[in-house]
Amino acid sequence: MRNFADRLIELVDALENPSCVGLDPRIADIPAAIKAEAVATCGNTLEAVARAFLEFNKRLVDATYDIVPAYKLQAAFYEAYGAHGLDALGITISHIKKRRRLVILDAKRGDIGSTAQAYADAYLGTVELCDRSRISGFIVADAMTVNPYFGYDGVKPFLDACERGHGVFIIVKTSNPSSKELQSLRLAGGGEFYEAVARKVSEWGASEQALGSSGYSAVGMVVGATFPAEAKRCREIAKNAIALVPGYGYQGGRAEDVVPLFNNDGLGAIISSSRRIIFAYKDERFKAESFEESARRAAMTMREDLVAALRDAGICRW
Amino acid sequence: MRNFADRLIELVDALENPSCVGLDPRIADIPAAIKAEAVATCGNTLEAVARAFLEFNKRLVDATYDIVPAYKLQAAFYEAYGAHGLDALGITISHIKKRRRLVILDAKRGDIGSTAQAYADAYLGTVELCDRSRISGFIVADAMTVNPYFGYDGVKPFLDACERGHGVFIIVKTSNPSSKELQSLRLAGGGEFYEAVARKVSEWGASEQALGSSGYSAVGMVVGATFPAEAKRCREIAKNAIALVPGYGYQGGRAEDVVPLFNNDGLGAIISSSRRIIFAYKDERFKAESFEESARRAAMTMREDLVAALRDAGICRW
Repeated sequence: MRNFADRLIELVDALENPSCVGLDPRIADIPAAIKAEAVATCGNTLEAVARAFLEFNKRLVDATYDIVPAYKLQAAFYEAYGAHGLDALGITISHIKKRRRLVILDAKRGDIGSTAQAYADAYLGTVELCDRSRISGFIVADAMTVNPYFGYDGVKPFLDACERGHGVFIIVKTSNPSSKELQSLRLAGGGEFYEAVARKVSEWGASEQALGSSGYSAVGMVVGATFPAEAKRCREIAKNAIALVPGYGYQGGRAEDVVPLFNNDGLGAIISSSRRIIFAYKDERFKAESFEESARRAAMTMREDLVAALRDAGICRW
Repeated sequence: MRNFADRLIELVDALENPSCVGLDPRIADIPAAIKAEAVATCGNTLEAVARAFLEFNKRLVDATYDIVPAYKLQAAFYEAYGAHGLDALGITISHIKKRRRLVILDAKRGDIGSTAQAYADAYLGTVELCDRSRISGFIVADAMTVNPYFGYDGVKPFLDACERGHGVFIIVKTSNPSSKELQSLRLAGGGEFYEAVARKVSEWGASEQALGSSGYSAVGMVVGATFPAEAKRCREIAKNAIALVPGYGYQGGRAEDVVPLFNNDGLGAIISSSRRIIFAYKDERFKAESFEESARRAAMTMREDLVAALRDAGICRW
């Protein structure tokens, strides 16, 4: 089966770029002209913020989609603006799909089975109408991030979605400073807690239904760029899992830090950067005529840096 | 300070009921008359489902609010219907507040600090507009559930909200069958993983700002009703934390199973039931003229069962 990993790898190879752009809009950082236009139309309202997000996102996508294979959207920033925010999220996703790029919804959902099913239906499936027929929800991503805390039955609905061509990235080792508090607790059987989670990812993703023709699984993992030793360990444990790697750029992760997350075939990781790309217009290095041109330059620089680091390590495919 | 726990305990004492009703609507289970009316107005659409949810919820709240101190709303079931679903969620919350009952948003969010802040702003705070002023978002709960996986910096924005009168329930031990897979891993230092999380809850909730005049913390924990031994252990570790206890009723938890989650003062737990209450009209025992009357009877029965079990244990306050 051509699974989510296959689709992602095809785009990564076509664009020679193993990265994605995080569309995590913050209203304070959005260019004044976009905000002014939104306020002129909707007043100083929640709706105006959502409108500004959508305009900002569309222009960013149009300026970068010939460079990047996928976009990661952090649900929190949209949810904060309620129904208007979800509209902006849903329309942004449609726009990305029109440009034939992949959408990763970074929602980090996790719950007991029946509730997890509702989340999987919402974002990777279909929802039931009053007459019991089913249609796609308003927000359908190609893949989403999932919290593993509930164990197998909380993850199962997302694994089922993988069999229908979707992907899932299970949170294993996160990029934030406090991630060690619980994730690095040592286990009686040896190793640390996050390693047990990585083993689960490997196990959940090893079924024939989850594996693609590339050999990579539709069940991936989230591994932060900021802890290189742990990242290397995750790579060893879950060989067939694609690592979605946040924490590059703004949070301090560098190109050489993420190299250990790639396998020797030069695949196996997709590096995500948000603030450094989408707000690049604030950065002297990427000064340009428009914010989207700045973002484009930052995205190209990120690709060049990653390719250079992979070449240095002797594992670049291109 | 009069914190969230104080407000909750006041209502629990006033109604002599340590339980809450889970408003987790599933369209297949909603009475046909409500669906027909929604479809007549909006057609067979996502909007019709959201409209049916709202009507169903309002009638349930009006039929039960003189019995129950709080309502728990599972975000997943609303999110599934996108912007329309969030509208139904937000308006339901406003309706509950009009009836002076507490709202627990069961969203189980968890992320790195900056994203966790966006979630806390969205559901327990204020969000920024285009002109940098801030207003309440559309969906503001009294408390919400949070996933602990990210450690302190991922929880901090919710702890800050506790200082402003809100509450948080940290997921510790969940009610689902697979919860043992990761939560019960044995640690090198002794004990199981969920116990380490319970210790964190106790630590995070012990600050002067989090503790209320009742002695209970605004930082609570989620502990399923289905694992009594683990529930008892959580109670021992985090003495000042109020346990939000799902899994009662439909998932198999009984009144005697949840008694160990109460302290000797007869406080310290709030037992949640969803399907057994809101869809009680399908249950012969609660047959009545309307679905809301069935729900009312089921809610009264649940209160009686809990009070009887607390009396048997000699720790009933009323």
